[in-house]
Amino acid sequence: MASNRGVVYVGPGKVEVRNIDYPKFVDPRGRKINHGVILKVLVTNICGSDQHMVRGRTTAPAGLVLGHEITGEVVEIGSDVEFIKVGDLVSTPFNVACGRCRTCRERETGVCLTVNPGRAGGAYGYVDMGGWIGGQAEYVMIPYADFNLLKFPDKAQAMEKIQDLACLTDILPTGYHGCVNAGVTTGSTVLISGAGPVGLAAAASALLLGAGVVLIADFNKERLAHAASFGCETINLSEGGSIGERVEQILGVPEVDCAVDCVGFEARQRGGEEQPATVLNQLMGITRAAGRIGIPGLYVTEDPGAKDKAAQTGNLSLRFGLGWAKSHAFFTGQTPVLKYNHGLMMAILHDRIRIAKAVNTKVISLDDAPKGYAAFDKGVAEKFLIDPHGSLRKAA
Amino acid sequence: MASNRGVVYVGPGKVEVRNIDYPKFVDPRGRKINHGVILKVLVTNICGSDQHMVRGRTTAPAGLVLGHEITGEVVEIGSDVEFIKVGDLVSTPFNVACGRCRTCRERETGVCLTVNPGRAGGAYGYVDMGGWIGGQAEYVMIPYADFNLLKFPDKAQAMEKIQDLACLTDILPTGYHGCVNAGVTTGSTVLISGAGPVGLAAAASALLLGAGVVLIADFNKERLAHAASFGCETINLSEGGSIGERVEQILGVPEVDCAVDCVGFEARQRGGEEQPATVLNQLMGITRAAGRIGIPGLYVTEDPGAKDKAAQTGNLSLRFGLGWAKSHAFFTGQTPVLKYNHGLMMAILHDRIRIAKAVNTKVISLDDAPKGYAAFDKGVAEKFLIDPHGSLRKAA
Amino acid sequence: MASNRGVVYVGPGKVEVRNIDYPKFVDPRGRKINHGVILKVLVTNICGSDQHMVRGRTTAPAGLVLGHEITGEVVEIGSDVEFIKVGDLVSTPFNVACGRCRTCRERETGVCLTVNPGRAGGAYGYVDMGGWIGGQAEYVMIPYADFNLLKFPDKAQAMEKIQDLACLTDILPTGYHGCVNAGVTTGSTVLISGAGPVGLAAAASALLLGAGVVLIADFNKERLAHAASFGCETINLSEGGSIGERVEQILGVPEVDCAVDCVGFEARQRGGEEQPATVLNQLMGITRAAGRIGIPGLYVTEDPGAKDKAAQTGNLSLRFGLGWAKSHAFFTGQTPVLKYNHGLMMAILHDRIRIAKAVNTKVISLDDAPKGYAAFDKGVAEKFLIDPHGSLRKAA
Amino acid sequence: MASNRGVVYVGPGKVEVRNIDYPKFVDPRGRKINHGVILKVLVTNICGSDQHMVRGRTTAPAGLVLGHEITGEVVEIGSDVEFIKVGDLVSTPFNVACGRCRTCRERETGVCLTVNPGRAGGAYGYVDMGGWIGGQAEYVMIPYADFNLLKFPDKAQAMEKIQDLACLTDILPTGYHGCVNAGVTTGSTVLISGAGPVGLAAAASALLLGAGVVLIADFNKERLAHAASFGCETINLSEGGSIGERVEQILGVPEVDCAVDCVGFEARQRGGEEQPATVLNQLMGITRAAGRIGIPGLYVTEDPGAKDKAAQTGNLSLRFGLGWAKSHAFFTGQTPVLKYNHGLMMAILHDRIRIAKAVNTKVISLDDAPKGYAAFDKGVAEKFLIDPHGSLRKAA
Repeated sequence: MASNRGVVYVGPGKVEVRNIDYPKFVDPRGRKINHGVILKVLVTNICGSDQHMVRGRTTAPAGLVLGHEITGEVVEIGSDVEFIKVGDLVSTPFNVACGRCRTCRERETGVCLTVNPGRAGGAYGYVDMGGWIGGQAEYVMIPYADFNLLKFPDKAQAMEKIQDLACLTDILPTGYHGCVNAGVTTGSTVLISGAGPVGLAAAASALLLGAGVVLIADFNKERLAHAASFGCETINLSEGGSIGERVEQILGVPEVDCAVDCVGFEARQRGGEEQPATVLNQLMGITRAAGRIGIPGLYVTEDPGAKDKAAQTGNLSLRFGLGWAKSHAFFTGQTPVLKYNHGLMMAILHDRIRIAKAVNTKVISLDDAPKGYAAFDKGVAEKFLIDPHGSLRKAA
Repeated sequence: MASNRGVVYVGPGKVEVRNIDYPKFVDPRGRKINHGVILKVLVTNICGSDQHMVRGRTTAPAGLVLGHEITGEVVEIGSDVEFIKVGDLVSTPFNVACGRCRTCRERETGVCLTVNPGRAGGAYGYVDMGGWIGGQAEYVMIPYADFNLLKFPDKAQAMEKIQDLACLTDILPTGYHGCVNAGVTTGSTVLISGAGPVGLAAAASALLLGAGVVLIADFNKERLAHAASFGCETINLSEGGSIGERVEQILGVPEVDCAVDCVGFEARQRGGEEQPATVLNQLMGITRAAGRIGIPGLYVTEDPGAKDKAAQTGNLSLRFGLGWAKSHAFFTGQTPVLKYNHGLMMAILHDRIRIAKAVNTKVISLDDAPKGYAAFDKGVAEKFLIDPHGSLRKAA
Repeated sequence: MASNRGVVYVGPGKVEVRNIDYPKFVDPRGRKINHGVILKVLVTNICGSDQHMVRGRTTAPAGLVLGHEITGEVVEIGSDVEFIKVGDLVSTPFNVACGRCRTCRERETGVCLTVNPGRAGGAYGYVDMGGWIGGQAEYVMIPYADFNLLKFPDKAQAMEKIQDLACLTDILPTGYHGCVNAGVTTGSTVLISGAGPVGLAAAASALLLGAGVVLIADFNKERLAHAASFGCETINLSEGGSIGERVEQILGVPEVDCAVDCVGFEARQRGGEEQPATVLNQLMGITRAAGRIGIPGLYVTEDPGAKDKAAQTGNLSLRFGLGWAKSHAFFTGQTPVLKYNHGLMMAILHDRIRIAKAVNTKVISLDDAPKGYAAFDKGVAEKFLIDPHGSLRKAA
Repeated sequence: MASNRGVVYVGPGKVEVRNIDYPKFVDPRGRKINHGVILKVLVTNICGSDQHMVRGRTTAPAGLVLGHEITGEVVEIGSDVEFIKVGDLVSTPFNVACGRCRTCRERETGVCLTVNPGRAGGAYGYVDMGGWIGGQAEYVMIPYADFNLLKFPDKAQAMEKIQDLACLTDILPTGYHGCVNAGVTTGSTVLISGAGPVGLAAAASALLLGAGVVLIADFNKERLAHAASFGCETINLSEGGSIGERVEQILGVPEVDCAVDCVGFEARQRGGEEQPATVLNQLMGITRAAGRIGIPGLYVTEDPGAKDKAAQTGNLSLRFGLGWAKSHAFFTGQTPVLKYNHGLMMAILHDRIRIAKAVNTKVISLDDAPKGYAAFDKGVAEKFLIDPHGSLRKAA
């Protein structure tokens, strides 16, 4: 019982599966805690934001256990845990949150004030997010479990949709948050920038929110084809024409009601060169007056790998005057998953969204995680779900 | 060109198609107006609220031209109309609104302060709503046309979905408003009381808003069967068990997140007896704590036909203490259609909702309007669309 | 240290100060808890809602320790309390809330799902609210302390405004919640029904929210005079004229933008007779179209003392048709104090509101609590603050 | 009657009072309109945004009649004007809006889609805002008058507070909008950047909204002293210490809940050098996690006078990564005055805000307008109100 294995960041471009400690009820500062539970990890996903670390674009230290998209079964509970029980099947928001500070009380669990001494906001297995051990592993400890965990109401029903439910930890709420912030509602026309898993989740969310037309833009033909398969209009940025012209071809007008940036700071121009402000500037160009821009794509304060000196400290050359002239509003930051995961779980359980299909999940073993990282980095149109105990493959 | 025919309320239980005046650019107080247009009516629906008048449950005077659900083509424009053009195909919100008073500026077009000297809020062809001539006719005048009218972007495209678009005048925004007020969102469990056209529109709206489960309750088997056909769970109130028990059978818990009253003051108990507070009291019983209750169903200030003396002046015996204990909020009133019809139009045009199918539209001629009233009064599961010029039947 | 004394409900019309158990870290079901703290009570107020019990208008059992408005100093903490420390000066919301259930996560702490087996929502020292021991005592136990308690940033600064800060536990957030729900904002005209402490707190809150004119209606001349002293327009209901006429005399129009019911189910008509729907029906009459009505005044599910049989089970004869015609919205329920107490504390500390003056606080000893109950029941224009350890009187 | 005089932009640094045409009922495209009124201008203010033109920082053509802050008496009405009457005393929002397009219906009158062929949004007397003739004149034409104009309920009462009411056209709603967008509410700590008239109006608005502490930062000692006179904490940016340190000295923590940028693109660094992103970057530094930043300060798409090449096309080097890490939201654009002016008028009429005092109004004659421009450009702590007919000076 005391053994454990996890995916470890070893250095730029390199992850390995290693033996790691079995989780204990202690926080990253070494203090004993009673409000945590230990999960046997049922499924744990590779996230696009993990790639920033693995590519060496962050200051993540070697030895960091990765993984913040964790679904599991409770195998042990701390003495202060009252509502979560051993045996419960639960979804873990990627945000670590105490549920007791001012921002948590205000539902802003993405910027909890207590779980990270360095800044507001914590996460599992992520650089600068408080040192909480990641969950791409067989077992993981979740603090403030009564507050953080979402219990699935019925285990058998949950196992039938487990690949969809696995998306509740991060990717689906993140795409959904981007859309909610962008004001997506009944009949909206929406442009999603980026057709990676978050972009696809945003597109599926926009449809769930009743959008009239969902456009998605990317350079990756395979990902766009996948987006088209569930009802999106696609814009291949490698092809000619400005994005405004392309929008006009589809909608008859060169603008959309709502825009969502699912790319973030590693944005590229048509030539392939990195230009971190490209996506945001495009979105100001094509979003209607009084429109809103949701920005779930990650922008960082430190990017030592950026070519541009300004970008190394997170400075972007934004065409802000244009946004101002159009009365745009901009919404940034980590998604407070807990605000959305109950409703999205209900939508999944009642077949209102097929998110696993939308993001094209692929189940792999823990040992295949490094291959998954490599394939994802090359831009395959798949979302990798690690199955550390073989439970999903057994169930399938 | 100067001839016109319309559906006229003659007395309790009786409507007739008669010759009426061709519309003029004058308001009900006889004042010349320049901001109006004349529509050739393309389609005009019979509404459940018309029935209150026709059944003699209101103080409507004989001679009143009925009809407030009007879709048409502009054939003449006043001198102050700048944006609407002759030839435009347009949807008319059932609310008459000036677009210039305090409540209109605040988007509360259901209670415009200027179009009705008697109280806040105007409508076409309706008792106590300002005296605006109804549109169950060949031609009708629409005031403040630039403000009130929603233009369809493409006439040919619109004609393909004209039965759906005809629902934008009232029934679809009304059902949708009830759901929005009730807080229906992604994953919600929702109970709709009443499976008439507004109830069905509310159910379809709840699905469009991403509801997890939509339950609908009625005594009418035929209407419930129709609701089941597009994904609702149904509760036949004629059958045994409390509504809480029935909800629990379906959801596993005896309560819903959101509730919508699409019945109004002519509510009946199981035995068939009228009891105007029945639906509201049931909804307080089964709505969760901190839940909201949307009430698009009409409650009136004068109901001379009520058996109960209190009900004759709109007094209801509500179990308000229960609602208070559960921190409920209650939302009443005419729907401000203009808040919703653009987005809903986009949803229809892009196939996100099939409202004509949901409410089971049936196209009839102007001459068959009296038969339509009679059939609707008997509870057929159909929504009647009057086609005064035969345009829809030609197109079909 | 292990001794304790508290105010005990003995029977209709009768409270006594008795020796009671020193608090333990157990919940009302007898289970050991680690998330609680023990407070030395610094100040604990008599509330109008306590009067419902003391008058015998509820099913409160004899022996119940009263008191849900508790401000104190932490003297002991449970093993899971991480952020609250011994010595902290804290304000306790009257709602007991777990901070871990669905409604707490949604900030609806007034209807926490776990702290009361009987229904949603818990409170200290109140019938049907979960059995939590009241705080009109020397010491009291507060569960889920990290979540529930609001710490004052500086003890010396807090002691200077302690009578104001004592109002954060219930009365000020409750009045404020009524105003927020009623849509009170910059320039609003507002009618407050009832000039008891909650009504006065609502009036002060309306001014803090920027209301243009605050009208307050009551039968009690002394309370109205007090309201006038801090800027309210007053309506003495004992005098002639309908409430609409009186509003018109003050505002020039017979209606207000917003209305707040601070009376509740023990409402009386001019003759003095109880008529529980009177206030709500008046408010529908004088609230403008599309206006909102906030209802912090308590309405109950069981009122065995009501003369009217319907009222005994919380049924009211509401003129709902009128509200519907005016598109009113109605907001009920216990105030979720935690949503508001941080901001209101800041407003007090920075002299933006003088709530102690507005509600006319009067500090009394624990032994004088029974006299305070008696005086309050007679309608004195004072809010009684019990000072169990003499700390306020020492400080003054 | 047919004579008129107005303030005309002649060239960089130069304005003159000249004879101009008496207004006609035609729009800038030369089309006859019936929905307009002609105002005898009672008071018309010089605005900080006029200075951008006068300093030659825009592409404003010589001959442009300035002035978008217009209060006046109606002397003539078009044939479609129904509610505004000759003799009414009215406030004109600086935004020209049709009240009939999609954004106007959505209350976004700052970006009306029809009044400006070049882009969304119109204004009087302003470059690129549709060509509407300015109102620093004796007479001016206001289109869509029923929609646009706010009538004062009582002329005599209005004349008593006319200097306050003159601020309703732009400056007060603009400062207020910045605060509302920034989330200012009861008890908030707020930093206002810039102590010019909009900054002072924002500070007064923050207090009206119930803010706990209002900090205001500027280089101008005189303006800061004025801000201190009505209750603001001031930060003189010429003095030492980072803005975070200065905030910490005042609040005890180095951050605020809400921030409002009332400076815009002509921002300067401590040395005096222009750096258009300075203010926004500071605000990201000192706004708390999950905080919001309101940006009423103007940012432009074309700034030919900027030293920095990127800034000439409105590109700013923003530290966006920092904002993202703190989950900030950013709100830009012209204020939709009509959303706020009714409530603010009520607040003025009922003495809830003394905005003329807060911005330090100074009444001057039309002939002294050029002197007013010159003095304002030098940074005097005064807001100039032009009184073209001598009415205010007579009244005083």
